[in-house]
Amino acid sequence: MTRKSYVRPLDLKHGRIDMNHGAGGRAAAQLVEELFIAAFAEADAGRTARGDDGAVLPAPGGRLVMATDAHVVSPLFFPGGDIGCLAVHGTVNDVAMMGAVPLYLSASFILEEGFPLADLKRIVRSMAHAAREAGVAIVTGDTKVVEQGKGDGVFISTTGVGVLPPGRDLGGARARPGDAVLLSGPIGSHGMAILSQRESLGFEHEIVSDTAALHGLVAHMLQRVPGVRVLRDPTRGGLGTTLNEIAVQSGVGMLIDEAAIAVPPQVEAACELLGLDPLYIANEGKLVAICPREDALELLAVMREHPLAREASLIGEVIEDPHHFVQMRTRLGGRRVVDWLSGEPLPRIC
Amino acid sequence: MTRKSYVRPLDLKHGRIDMNHGAGGRAAAQLVEELFIAAFAEADAGRTARGDDGAVLPAPGGRLVMATDAHVVSPLFFPGGDIGCLAVHGTVNDVAMMGAVPLYLSASFILEEGFPLADLKRIVRSMAHAAREAGVAIVTGDTKVVEQGKGDGVFISTTGVGVLPPGRDLGGARARPGDAVLLSGPIGSHGMAILSQRESLGFEHEIVSDTAALHGLVAHMLQRVPGVRVLRDPTRGGLGTTLNEIAVQSGVGMLIDEAAIAVPPQVEAACELLGLDPLYIANEGKLVAICPREDALELLAVMREHPLAREASLIGEVIEDPHHFVQMRTRLGGRRVVDWLSGEPLPRIC
Repeated sequence: MTRKSYVRPLDLKHGRIDMNHGAGGRAAAQLVEELFIAAFAEADAGRTARGDDGAVLPAPGGRLVMATDAHVVSPLFFPGGDIGCLAVHGTVNDVAMMGAVPLYLSASFILEEGFPLADLKRIVRSMAHAAREAGVAIVTGDTKVVEQGKGDGVFISTTGVGVLPPGRDLGGARARPGDAVLLSGPIGSHGMAILSQRESLGFEHEIVSDTAALHGLVAHMLQRVPGVRVLRDPTRGGLGTTLNEIAVQSGVGMLIDEAAIAVPPQVEAACELLGLDPLYIANEGKLVAICPREDALELLAVMREHPLAREASLIGEVIEDPHHFVQMRTRLGGRRVVDWLSGEPLPRIC
Repeated sequence: MTRKSYVRPLDLKHGRIDMNHGAGGRAAAQLVEELFIAAFAEADAGRTARGDDGAVLPAPGGRLVMATDAHVVSPLFFPGGDIGCLAVHGTVNDVAMMGAVPLYLSASFILEEGFPLADLKRIVRSMAHAAREAGVAIVTGDTKVVEQGKGDGVFISTTGVGVLPPGRDLGGARARPGDAVLLSGPIGSHGMAILSQRESLGFEHEIVSDTAALHGLVAHMLQRVPGVRVLRDPTRGGLGTTLNEIAVQSGVGMLIDEAAIAVPPQVEAACELLGLDPLYIANEGKLVAICPREDALELLAVMREHPLAREASLIGEVIEDPHHFVQMRTRLGGRRVVDWLSGEPLPRIC
């Protein structure tokens, strides 16, 4: 595609998406070239699909891991991030949680007619930046446009492909009674950053999303403690739901300590105000790790060496339980069952 | 995940999507298990990500091809197909056009609150059927829900990964002056099936979409004529736009014959009624092939052996042209330039 085919460049300051941008003709090609390729090409080392419908990629051998996420977060911009970097982090993290090294991302955009090109540019730049930081290349993409009122600004689906080094075998079904459960840091920041923005809660200290790519932390952990059995990022549904998912997948129970689970004071305050439990609030830069008991202290120390897990803690243990309950020792010394997310859902958090 | 965790099964007859289905809790898990996994598991040979956020896949070595497409077609159901099979065919074809063997698909769904579960089930079954027929496994997925009025029923993004056999090197930049341009069959059926449904044109003979997976045709062609240089499916923007894209990518011109491009009579009639040019109408089961002139007749014969290209034709040649124009010899003996898609766009055709 050559720039000279277009009469004038896109107006990236005041222009808006119109239905022509989705029609597969010249306007669509111009949008791809001047907005998407311009942003993604820097990071891609020449692998981005230029004008072809797919990208050809060197395959490093071994097993592949593939993961996908649709992103519909509202608002699109929030303290600590935006839908662009979130769409990279979410999928990079899903690939990393399988123990794989993320390599390639695809991105598909569903744009609403009338969406400002300046906002789209900001989002796409944020994606490109996040991809560069995560060491992944956005190698192929697609753009569709829907009429005003049939979408909501922009939705982004990303798919990640990574390679799984030989011998690695992590998964939610591998927890065993006696294993230790670790958490990489304080919970609830992403979900409460979104909700407090949406509800216009004017806190003195703004809550900032924890959105981050966790592949580096994972690589560090697995290099030093290869016996880790389960990694999972507690996103939608929060820590409570994640632990329940793993319990059911592995056919075990869990017993966790409320006192060991840190919640930032602003998140705590916002949760109280809105009547929410931090255990069910989404995180986008945290992980749960389960490993054999004898590796637990080593893993904890290793995690704390990494900037994204300085406040890691040992939060509990895997136990035998035919009902697959997650139980919590409360601060007051009692016990309660931590159920799956219940009550009102928190929509469009990621 | 065990079925017994849910109080009652999903009401797949009368139930509707609600915001809970997107919240990452029990309702979301139930939707995934009872609707998606139930449909996709048959086809997947155990590779589907069960409860994990990603799928672990054997990698067959060699280079990978990765392609993605967002699908926003309206209406969701149309003569000859639906958004489900279209979402499989579209991405399988993008992978196949690079000369690769499609292996794995991911699928991410953006569902509108209130969408009938019965319709979703029909769509998901259609995807599963299309994937089985195409020999690809839907290995991982994601589901998000947006409020009523912020989406339009269902949008589906699929990403495909395939493996490129050694020595294959196809791409839109490889056309050379003197090459032959072939087309696998009559054009315009998909786009006009959608438009005539949308405009409620009551034709005597319903126009049926040509949506189909082309990987088998591609394998057949490349096995017998390995020298093929370019393959491309003329989807959004139609044959006219596809030829222009290739001309610009390869830095060449093209000269095609109007008489050699078949248009089904119903498509011709509908185009006349709506004032549209079949050259810009989307296809979902056709391909353009460009090969050295000396291979052209062999390739034509090989294509016609395959059920999806019985009406293949030689439509023209690649020429030198510094302006990268696509010219057409008209039926009346004149010449005209076939520009990129111009005039009113045809939105949400795929």
